[in-house]
Amino acid sequence: MTATRRAQIIGTGLIGGSIGLALRRAGWRVTGSDLDPSRSERALEVEAIDEIGSDPDAELVVIAVPVGSIAALAVDALGAHPHAVVTDVGSVKGAISRAVDHPRFVGGHPMAGSEQDGIDGSLASLFDGAVWVLTPTSRVDPTAHARLHTAISELGADVVTLDPDSHDAIVAVISHVPHLTAATLMGLASERATDQAALLRLAAGGFRDMTRISAGHPGIWPDICVENRDAIVEVIDDLRSELGKVRDIIADADREALLERLHAARAARLRLPGPAVRPVGLAELRIPLDDRPGQLAHVTTAATAHGVNIYDIEIAHSTEGERGTLIVVVDSSRAEALAEILRSGGYGATVTDLQ
Amino acid sequence: MTATRRAQIIGTGLIGGSIGLALRRAGWRVTGSDLDPSRSERALEVEAIDEIGSDPDAELVVIAVPVGSIAALAVDALGAHPHAVVTDVGSVKGAISRAVDHPRFVGGHPMAGSEQDGIDGSLASLFDGAVWVLTPTSRVDPTAHARLHTAISELGADVVTLDPDSHDAIVAVISHVPHLTAATLMGLASERATDQAALLRLAAGGFRDMTRISAGHPGIWPDICVENRDAIVEVIDDLRSELGKVRDIIADADREALLERLHAARAARLRLPGPAVRPVGLAELRIPLDDRPGQLAHVTTAATAHGVNIYDIEIAHSTEGERGTLIVVVDSSRAEALAEILRSGGYGATVTDLQ
Repeated sequence: MTATRRAQIIGTGLIGGSIGLALRRAGWRVTGSDLDPSRSERALEVEAIDEIGSDPDAELVVIAVPVGSIAALAVDALGAHPHAVVTDVGSVKGAISRAVDHPRFVGGHPMAGSEQDGIDGSLASLFDGAVWVLTPTSRVDPTAHARLHTAISELGADVVTLDPDSHDAIVAVISHVPHLTAATLMGLASERATDQAALLRLAAGGFRDMTRISAGHPGIWPDICVENRDAIVEVIDDLRSELGKVRDIIADADREALLERLHAARAARLRLPGPAVRPVGLAELRIPLDDRPGQLAHVTTAATAHGVNIYDIEIAHSTEGERGTLIVVVDSSRAEALAEILRSGGYGATVTDLQ
Repeated sequence: MTATRRAQIIGTGLIGGSIGLALRRAGWRVTGSDLDPSRSERALEVEAIDEIGSDPDAELVVIAVPVGSIAALAVDALGAHPHAVVTDVGSVKGAISRAVDHPRFVGGHPMAGSEQDGIDGSLASLFDGAVWVLTPTSRVDPTAHARLHTAISELGADVVTLDPDSHDAIVAVISHVPHLTAATLMGLASERATDQAALLRLAAGGFRDMTRISAGHPGIWPDICVENRDAIVEVIDDLRSELGKVRDIIADADREALLERLHAARAARLRLPGPAVRPVGLAELRIPLDDRPGQLAHVTTAATAHGVNIYDIEIAHSTEGERGTLIVVVDSSRAEALAEILRSGGYGATVTDLQ
């Protein structure tokens, strides 16, 4: 008989509530708290949590509060939950990872959301097929990291591992600056609409698609823009520079150069990967480790960099002491390639197909 | 018994084919032609047209070819179809209107499309509830204009009237520059993805929505960007300047200014009008005209500028000569406001509620 696993959720809004629902669906017992008692009461009513309060025996603590409040709450949680792996769901990871930096803290960022807001928008299925980034630092204990990876996989998400600063640079390009650009386009159109009521009636599907994200609640953005300032400013500078090139191409009526850019963008858009499809066959990689922190993060980050999804992780500890074996489950068609990459990085790696 | 109305479609791609299907659904007999005979044959197979060829007795000619070829074909069509009102579906209207400028030519632009391409993507319902812009010049014969307005309404579209240059300025903001921006964002992300395979896997719904339009076929854009060059360059300059302000706000960590911009964009996005809802009550405005060209265009453009939808138009000619009465059908709750506007512009206007 397995004891019921116990989780603590700090912050029961849309994401915290959805994690509660998804954990409960997977058999966890969930305790939740929120700065605003009406929100934790509502979380209990919608059955996103089993109980309001703090569970010192929780083995998993998820901090689902605005970016600016995460680091302090994570440090508190590491003290209050001495056996737990602590994670968060903030959209920016570098500053938090540096501020907390602890063997049992692994930053996280589920790439799922909703235009809805608050606990009543929560869904157990919010993370099904979504990418969930983990950003372990080199100080992270591999066992804590593996336990978190497995728990997140149980929520239906595909776990992708990145170092915190790479994560921040990437989300600046594919989330933060697109959001700011959508708001800017909406602002431009709206400004011109003041003397031209017809303007916004002409907005067809393309414009609606492009500006949809600007309808979300603005409250989260000041924190995000402060914490990821450097990456965002760099990407806006790049975007302005590229738009300047497009402007000159159009001013010069340079049809060839315009077509070349649009064809490249189209090809990239059509290549945009959809949700990961569960592969036909799985294989196990067994990688001997000596339990130094950072080794598991190195392996998982390498897998992410080469587009290999890790479906499960386990660490088998040897009985004779420090050494153990890392077992990762991947698509069997990619297993040998990942093993090669790890071998060239100095790891031993053997592949076994799973039937 | 009413004689079957006859239409000619020149260019049987996605839009031409959909217009054929929608006209046939409304009881028209449709003859179609295409530079590429395989495309008109396919249009016949999918029943978008009744016959391949040219119908000199057509009372409506729709030119549905790329923007760069429209003006010459429109001039030819006015000669070959001496009784027809001729229209087009190009995305840029100023240059074509100036090049053709004829009492029986009224430029048009249905604000509907599809990521699909070609006759096989055609749908009779493509224009249901879509906005369809007409851009009559002051030389246009009001009877031709009214006949076209009625025919387009029969296809299920909401007709909006604008002068050609206003149309071009508006579509630069809500279509052309957003498209170019989506392609530029996609290009930026794709460039950075070359050293970071994980980047594009992290692209969640917001980024997918924003870049969706960049997956369309680039072929139409060089013509559009040449014909609407000045408006597009002006809007890109504005966008770059606004993005520069956003950049400085973020570099300065100015939370208040950022929130203010995002709140304004959100409010504008939430106000974005959906498809026009058929009003509960309709009213008729009767406006005496003296049949000078440009009067009907003036009335319909004023209605558009004040956000009043015209559901039907008729011109009742007096038996005594030049004078006639324009009858427009509008939402009864807006009828008196439109009448006031027209009266202040020197027109007589009486309102009758329709039961």
